[in-house]
Parts: sequence; C-alpha cells; structure tokens
Amino acid sequence: MNRLDLVRWIDLHPVVDDRGSLTAIESGQSIPFEIKRVYFLHDIVADRAGHAHRDTQQVIIRLAGNFVISLSNEFETTSYELNRSDKGLYLPPMLFIRLTKFSPDAVTLVLASTHYDKSRSIRSWAEYIEATR
Amino acid sequence: MNRLDLVRWIDLHPVVDDRGSLTAIESGQSIPFEIKRVYFLHDIVADRAGHAHRDTQQVIIRLAGNFVISLSNEFETTSYELNRSDKGLYLPPMLFIRLTKFSPDAVTLVLASTHYDKSRSIRSWAEYIEATR
Repeated sequence: MNRLDLVRWIDLHPVVDDRGSLTAIESGQSIPFEIKRVYFLHDIVADRAGHAHRDTQQVIIRLAGNFVISLSNEFETTSYELNRSDKGLYLPPMLFIRLTKFSPDAVTLVLASTHYDKSRSIRSWAEYIEATR
Repeated sequence: MNRLDLVRWIDLHPVVDDRGSLTAIESGQSIPFEIKRVYFLHDIVADRAGHAHRDTQQVIIRLAGNFVISLSNEFETTSYELNRSDKGLYLPPMLFIRLTKFSPDAVTLVLASTHYDKSRSIRSWAEYIEATR
C-alpha cells in the first residue's frame, strides 16, 4: 500500500451568506476520525521542519494566507499548496510532513485523531526511514 | 446561578519559538469538554445575529484580526474584545451570543461540545427569554 494514495481533499462545505463564511466540521462525521486534538499555527516565520506521526490521522486546513505541505513516504514526495478554506487535506499516519512557504498572514488549523504523546511522533528523516522498515 | 459568571478565559499556552506560534488544545483536557464540532468564521462582513445554545458548551478563539463577543442572560450583557490568540473564551450553554465589530481579516475558531442539531439552538431573543423561564 502506498500511503500517499490515502491523502485526499475533504470538502468542508462552507456556508457562505451575506454575513460571511462559516465552516463546520463534525467530529467523526465530516472527517474519518474523532477529534482528540486541535492545533493552530500563526505568525510563522520559518519552515516547520519534517516530522511524522506513527498512528495519528490529521486534517489540515488553511484558514488564512497560504503555505505548502510536502508529504513523503520512503520513496517519493507529493506537495500541495493550501490556499483556500473550503477543503481540508486528509493525512494518514506515517507520512513525513514538511510545511513550507508560509505567507506572513498564514493561519493553519489541524485536527488530529490522537492526544499529544511524544512517543507517537517521529522528528527526523533518519528515524522515519528506520520506522518504515 | 448567574450563567455569565461561568464565562472565563482559558489559557491556551501557545508554544512560541523562532519558527512561529503553535497552540494545541487537547479535547477534554485543555478545555472542560470533549470536542464534537469545530467551526470557523472568516471573510465576515456583517454582525452575526444573536443566538443561544440550549446545551452546548463552547470555547471561542480569535485566530486573526479582532472582534467583539457580547454575552447576555435575561438581565445583563457582558462584552469581550477578542484580539489575541493565547486565550480562548469559555461559554457555558444558554447565554445569548452576539458577534460584532469584526475586522476585515478576522478569523474565529469555535470548539463545541455537541454535534449540530437545529433543535439545540435558539435563534431569537424572544425565544431565548421564553426558554429561560
């Protein structure tokens, strides 16, 4: 199985009216997991170095500005530009993730399927390659 | 019991380093409920009219720009300016909520304790007053 093939856009179905845009994500319904952790990034001034999650699924959503996410397995890398808020990118576990090219106003929201646990994350490419063996 | 007294700021403990700011919220741990629904507002061009939630707890977080949230019980109103991202405002159920004075770049994140269900929400002040009796 190529884990990169599991990456996909999820349509978030924003409700846009004359007041603005509201987008709701129902845990375990709009996305394929229960939300255990939410995190957001802003005022980003440098790339977020590579990491992977052993068993955490995520959906990453651009809320403002734009940035690039590069996803790698042992052999190949696919990059996605996140520049709109009506879709989230579903990330299965065990992809090596790099976030780059943040615009100064970028705001990124991530929904995750597990609570934080340092042992669940892989912080270097060498460790990632080791873990995929 | 005055429900307005249950409103409080929750410190979100952002991790700020030379790459930028990352803020994580653990469902049921950083906040006093399990996250069942996440929604976000952006490109807001008009006030979001008043509503209340019969049994939904929420935490509202400013991710960009600024706006004002006014919270009312039957007798009184308290307003909060949301202009920083390191704290979220906890909202108990059954307050009448108005969101106003959005800056053009405002992005608002809301974490909610229940899935969406139209019967859980109150869409007018008259209905709210009726429900508090």
